[in-house]
Amino acid sequence: MKLAMIGLGRMGGNMARRLMKGGHQIVAFDQNADAVAGLVKDGAEGAASLDEVKAKLDSPAIYWVMLPAGEITEGVIGKIADAANPGDIVIDGGNSFWKDDVRRAKALADKGLHYVDVGTSGGVWGLERGYCMMIGGPEEAITTLDPVFATLAPGIGTIPRTPHVEEGGGTWRAEQGYVHAGPAGAGHFVKMVHNGIEYGMMQSYAEGFDVLRQRNLPTLKDGERFDLNMSDIAEVWRRGSVISSWLLDLVAIALAKDPDLKQFSGRVADSGEGRWTIDAAMEEAVPVDVLAASVFARFRSRVEESYADQLLSAMRFGFGGHVEMPQ
Amino acid sequence: MKLAMIGLGRMGGNMARRLMKGGHQIVAFDQNADAVAGLVKDGAEGAASLDEVKAKLDSPAIYWVMLPAGEITEGVIGKIADAANPGDIVIDGGNSFWKDDVRRAKALADKGLHYVDVGTSGGVWGLERGYCMMIGGPEEAITTLDPVFATLAPGIGTIPRTPHVEEGGGTWRAEQGYVHAGPAGAGHFVKMVHNGIEYGMMQSYAEGFDVLRQRNLPTLKDGERFDLNMSDIAEVWRRGSVISSWLLDLVAIALAKDPDLKQFSGRVADSGEGRWTIDAAMEEAVPVDVLAASVFARFRSRVEESYADQLLSAMRFGFGGHVEMPQ
Amino acid sequence: MKLAMIGLGRMGGNMARRLMKGGHQIVAFDQNADAVAGLVKDGAEGAASLDEVKAKLDSPAIYWVMLPAGEITEGVIGKIADAANPGDIVIDGGNSFWKDDVRRAKALADKGLHYVDVGTSGGVWGLERGYCMMIGGPEEAITTLDPVFATLAPGIGTIPRTPHVEEGGGTWRAEQGYVHAGPAGAGHFVKMVHNGIEYGMMQSYAEGFDVLRQRNLPTLKDGERFDLNMSDIAEVWRRGSVISSWLLDLVAIALAKDPDLKQFSGRVADSGEGRWTIDAAMEEAVPVDVLAASVFARFRSRVEESYADQLLSAMRFGFGGHVEMPQ
Amino acid sequence: MKLAMIGLGRMGGNMARRLMKGGHQIVAFDQNADAVAGLVKDGAEGAASLDEVKAKLDSPAIYWVMLPAGEITEGVIGKIADAANPGDIVIDGGNSFWKDDVRRAKALADKGLHYVDVGTSGGVWGLERGYCMMIGGPEEAITTLDPVFATLAPGIGTIPRTPHVEEGGGTWRAEQGYVHAGPAGAGHFVKMVHNGIEYGMMQSYAEGFDVLRQRNLPTLKDGERFDLNMSDIAEVWRRGSVISSWLLDLVAIALAKDPDLKQFSGRVADSGEGRWTIDAAMEEAVPVDVLAASVFARFRSRVEESYADQLLSAMRFGFGGHVEMPQ
Repeated sequence: MKLAMIGLGRMGGNMARRLMKGGHQIVAFDQNADAVAGLVKDGAEGAASLDEVKAKLDSPAIYWVMLPAGEITEGVIGKIADAANPGDIVIDGGNSFWKDDVRRAKALADKGLHYVDVGTSGGVWGLERGYCMMIGGPEEAITTLDPVFATLAPGIGTIPRTPHVEEGGGTWRAEQGYVHAGPAGAGHFVKMVHNGIEYGMMQSYAEGFDVLRQRNLPTLKDGERFDLNMSDIAEVWRRGSVISSWLLDLVAIALAKDPDLKQFSGRVADSGEGRWTIDAAMEEAVPVDVLAASVFARFRSRVEESYADQLLSAMRFGFGGHVEMPQ
Repeated sequence: MKLAMIGLGRMGGNMARRLMKGGHQIVAFDQNADAVAGLVKDGAEGAASLDEVKAKLDSPAIYWVMLPAGEITEGVIGKIADAANPGDIVIDGGNSFWKDDVRRAKALADKGLHYVDVGTSGGVWGLERGYCMMIGGPEEAITTLDPVFATLAPGIGTIPRTPHVEEGGGTWRAEQGYVHAGPAGAGHFVKMVHNGIEYGMMQSYAEGFDVLRQRNLPTLKDGERFDLNMSDIAEVWRRGSVISSWLLDLVAIALAKDPDLKQFSGRVADSGEGRWTIDAAMEEAVPVDVLAASVFARFRSRVEESYADQLLSAMRFGFGGHVEMPQ
Repeated sequence: MKLAMIGLGRMGGNMARRLMKGGHQIVAFDQNADAVAGLVKDGAEGAASLDEVKAKLDSPAIYWVMLPAGEITEGVIGKIADAANPGDIVIDGGNSFWKDDVRRAKALADKGLHYVDVGTSGGVWGLERGYCMMIGGPEEAITTLDPVFATLAPGIGTIPRTPHVEEGGGTWRAEQGYVHAGPAGAGHFVKMVHNGIEYGMMQSYAEGFDVLRQRNLPTLKDGERFDLNMSDIAEVWRRGSVISSWLLDLVAIALAKDPDLKQFSGRVADSGEGRWTIDAAMEEAVPVDVLAASVFARFRSRVEESYADQLLSAMRFGFGGHVEMPQ
Repeated sequence: MKLAMIGLGRMGGNMARRLMKGGHQIVAFDQNADAVAGLVKDGAEGAASLDEVKAKLDSPAIYWVMLPAGEITEGVIGKIADAANPGDIVIDGGNSFWKDDVRRAKALADKGLHYVDVGTSGGVWGLERGYCMMIGGPEEAITTLDPVFATLAPGIGTIPRTPHVEEGGGTWRAEQGYVHAGPAGAGHFVKMVHNGIEYGMMQSYAEGFDVLRQRNLPTLKDGERFDLNMSDIAEVWRRGSVISSWLLDLVAIALAKDPDLKQFSGRVADSGEGRWTIDAAMEEAVPVDVLAASVFARFRSRVEESYADQLLSAMRFGFGGHVEMPQ
């Protein structure tokens, strides 16, 4: 198929490349002309403007928008929608808030356009491994796009089939690594929860390895102190343990390179999905202690001096005359 | 009554003074001769050794040990027990682990001695306000000590009587500010949980004021940013609100002096009781999410660079090529 | 002053009564004619419709709306605003979401009306103790309303003055129990955080007393089990301890009546403020582990059968063949 | 090699079988004669008593104890130690508390015996997949046992090699699925943290799927409700997503069979390791918010009626006259 890739960053550029390898034609557009040139070198048609993108697409035109969530995506989708013809398909493949999808889908449907939201997992490894995709939107458009998704997805590969999977009432495509989760918004909703879980899993490993690491501290008394090898432990857990995972593979890679992780200061960013997962849970009155604590740990990692902690010290001074611990 | 106060720090010294004001006689002992001299100036008999303490006491001798929990208390109680006569009473008024009380009480009972554990709350304000006491030990010894507890306790004062309090099946002394909670260990157990709750309450205020404070940040957009006055808010909550408390009074004092709390860096110590409360909860399989999170927040406040956070960064770099946020 | 009280439930009715006792005139309105009749008996002018309310007020008219947050409040304020004259004042004294205040204030200002949001704490005790009020809105309107707030507030009473309070840069009225926190929305924002803290404090007591209570279980081994008296402990903590508070007074009342709390099943509601506090914290990237865990504990209290827990069991069965624990 | 397997439950029996398949000779013993008979049928020598076990072993005798942690393991190891000869090796392959290992290793060393602790992960799948092993004990004994570990472990199999793994300073055996973590206790310490992490990961999935599931509730308003297919989502996440893991494979199996998980009531057991991980973290002052919350969620899952929640209701009734939510 022929489709436009709007936004040629780490994700968009690689997805376009994987699509071309799979036999699709790409019209490539980005604010950054060098990024366009890079894709053209790899076989894409370049475009210097959204108008040019439109002119180079077939009918129905397919626009895959792969831009930072928020105002940038909103603006570009608005411009595409203004210029598009009925029947055209606009895909938001970024990390948008799912309620924005619901709203946009309605607005585009009023113009006869199809809006599809695709949550994508796989990161920088997706070019090679394939991308796991969670998709929301109208059945008709999803069906049209099936060859695109099939190329981007990892496929069944060497990962064993789940016993009874056919009884789960689901779609066979889930085995290929993409799923039509529901109407507009459902794709990003599922991706959002995916990231919420991801935060929880990452925090679980982080806390566990911290407990291991601090067990080596010389301040612990004899018989209670060990000399644990972080790299060894990550490696052994990859092999037959209950906690083996792809994230653990990444941990093992990092710890093999440097068990002290000196390269990293530990100021950890969080994207919207973790916070939105907490919001969604609050709308549903679902307790999410672990997912929330994982988001808060990242907030805390970026605080130099915590007002909350200062207030704790002030109270301790107030009732006990306690002076703070030395730095 | 006549009793020895062993350990004349902030707590022991003031308790001895309150006892003397209440008509009791104190034999004062401390490693630090200056501390002894200070008490002698205020009316106590000084002692230069535990032997001298013993010689100056009546029979049964009453030893109130007010020392840092752990090895120091353990050692001194051991020495007293070796020298004491059957019927003597040894009180541990520090912040000992309640299982140590259970063990010691048994050992002392074997020698015919009474062991009493007293958890004490009130901090530096106790001299004036009186001390809230949670007491474990044998009925007989507690009865003997009643005049001592009555003097140390705040008494009913101006705090209104709880309706139906006589129906709770409890002791009237609770209204005076002291309670016989059970056999040895029960006093420190109740005090331990008291401190666990204290951590949770402090953390609740700390987080809430942090949310208020950060709402003033210039980075928030117009209409979402306020200019809240921390001191005002603490003050108003003292007056008729559901969250008024003695801790809030301390918050108000601190914020009135300096709403920026510049005096405090926010490295917050924790004593054993918070951790032991979590242990006790785990023995009982009681979920204590808030009490545990409060202890962990203090741990976190003392960490310069968190290995856990570094590992999160390493994973993010691994799957997404994400570079850390700038300092 | 003369003002209308719209909504005569537990809060509105008692506030109207306190205002009348303080010499103000009340025009009382409620959907429920009996509620109006009750207030008329206590000295209010009754009104059978918003039109009648308007007719009975002076200029500028003052409308105090005391209704459930959400659609009901929104609708009534809309109607009042449509009928009001420039310079009139509309007060939302309920538990509205602060961003609704910001929006409404702007809409009303466009019509020349003043919008004031008042977060109120004190519950059913307010009639007697007075109400703690956190106020947002334009300076001019707040000044007009000062006599109303002064009557509703507890005043300085017997609660001691905070040392240095005059240095905190705040308003002297905070000592009276009301504070002008900022422009529209600031009142409900501060009240929201108040409730967030309240949840955390309540959960701290709840967990602590649970740890105490389960320590009495016969399943614990000898020497590790006590027979703690819940009522006694709550009572003693009211007297000189660091964790004394008004909430603890309520705990003591409840436990004196029935230490088994058999009247309560433990399905705990949560109002919007707890959740909104978490939202606000996420906007600010402030970690609020304790406040969030307190909200989640309430969610969990209302779940009969948790899908999350079922999935844990399914995983345990999957890797270990573990069968679930018997009911 | 020839070794005894003491305890032929799900784990011990399968490990013995894997060892025999790998060419080792097993002397099988269990309280349950049927279990012994089952192993004999599969090629083991049976034994009817520990004496008979001893008689059938070579020198040095190797005893692999695979029993429930606590008193049972303690008792059996004590008996073996009493009868063993200098140079013999006693392995505790169960889920013992690591401080028990430290203590036992010292006691056995005094008798010239080697004590080795092996934490084992892999569950019922280990027979086929191999067992991931974390080992503590003296170098000499570990070297002797190497062929045993090599057979039990999964080996490198199809799991790709970690880049740079040779630079991590660790042992090459980690790639085979077993690691010598340190002196006695280190094996179970690492296994303990493994289980702590496992709890956190499981809880992350559990919360995430709960958020997905409740999004299907008819009580949510249109446009905010979906009809998500649990089985599909688990399946798609196995394919190229960041959160793929072996635990997720198990989730997918369970959800394919029954997305409602009707078979499970959700009363979730916890073994000692989760709690001990929290203890270890508290000794080290490492914040483990997520690992602790995961343990507490299991506690909560087993509570019919929570005293903590009842107390929350009692407080709400106290300040607001709030009646509890209906069941």
